[in-house]
Amino acid sequence: MRKYKKKDFPVHNVRRLLEPGPIVLVSSAHGDRTNIMTMGWHMVMEFSPSLVTCLISSGNHSFDLVRQSKQCVINIPTVDLAETVVRIGNTSGRNIDKFSEFGLTPKTGTHVRAPLIEECYANLECELADAGWVRKYNVFVFEVAKAHIATSPKLPKTIHYRGDGEFMISGSETRKWRKLFRPGML
Amino acid sequence: MRKYKKKDFPVHNVRRLLEPGPIVLVSSAHGDRTNIMTMGWHMVMEFSPSLVTCLISSGNHSFDLVRQSKQCVINIPTVDLAETVVRIGNTSGRNIDKFSEFGLTPKTGTHVRAPLIEECYANLECELADAGWVRKYNVFVFEVAKAHIATSPKLPKTIHYRGDGEFMISGSETRKWRKLFRPGML
Repeated sequence: MRKYKKKDFPVHNVRRLLEPGPIVLVSSAHGDRTNIMTMGWHMVMEFSPSLVTCLISSGNHSFDLVRQSKQCVINIPTVDLAETVVRIGNTSGRNIDKFSEFGLTPKTGTHVRAPLIEECYANLECELADAGWVRKYNVFVFEVAKAHIATSPKLPKTIHYRGDGEFMISGSETRKWRKLFRPGML
Repeated sequence: MRKYKKKDFPVHNVRRLLEPGPIVLVSSAHGDRTNIMTMGWHMVMEFSPSLVTCLISSGNHSFDLVRQSKQCVINIPTVDLAETVVRIGNTSGRNIDKFSEFGLTPKTGTHVRAPLIEECYANLECELADAGWVRKYNVFVFEVAKAHIATSPKLPKTIHYRGDGEFMISGSETRKWRKLFRPGML
């Protein structure tokens, strides 16, 4: 599987990666355990500090790892990883080590202990910023402390879950309307 | 502009529309005023009740209309409306009536007073379910009370904001992996 070469990416700009709505892989570590889960329910909340909220169901093995370590990495896979993304979402870290099971490469981050997935297009190192809705809704608010992005391509072919086992593949078509935006609205 | 013919859609299934991450139009009404805003920061939170959370900045004219009426409609536009979506996001309802300005057709819903936009592919009638994070984060939690969807096409060409004035157009390519899903995981 392809490993992307990475460069730093400004954290206030992660909306460029997350707002289009890709399915992501959340990696976590606590004690001597690591895990990866597939996640589709996430939302950008603020540019600076760079806040992202997401829902990690308490039934997931990752829930306790993230809650206890107060950290995770949000990894953005591209279409070449699609089948692996599905398999990760349909197995549990209680029974298997997902990095070895799926041949993914853990990489040490600079801000969190949770491992980055080298085969993903981007890696967002996240620290828990607000746990106020964890018990009520399984909703976590993270601050992105550090972001890494592939040096190429410029526009990743991300995968977007439609439910019912179907994925939309990010189109190669892009349209720009910069001229229609008011200053500060881009 | 095209008006979609609609049918009912089960509210527990709105993740099929929202999870891929389209930009949406939020319509609202309070007193004798209506408005439309463009929104990209939203997330599905629960199947049943059908909960969706989103961020409506307090600087937007829609903020007060939604907060006071405790209702809105989340409308999902397709690529034919893309330029209008950008224009809606770069004007304020303080100054103009967006329905007439942009030639959009308001339609009366069955559960909320906020108008549905006929030219959108889907319309989700929403009632405010939790205002606990409105003041802290401008985050609203809505329950989808009723959903309407176009009778065709089956897969809409939605538009997905990348920031910086750029939109990704939903790809026509779809991949299915139903066989890889465990029961209950679709």
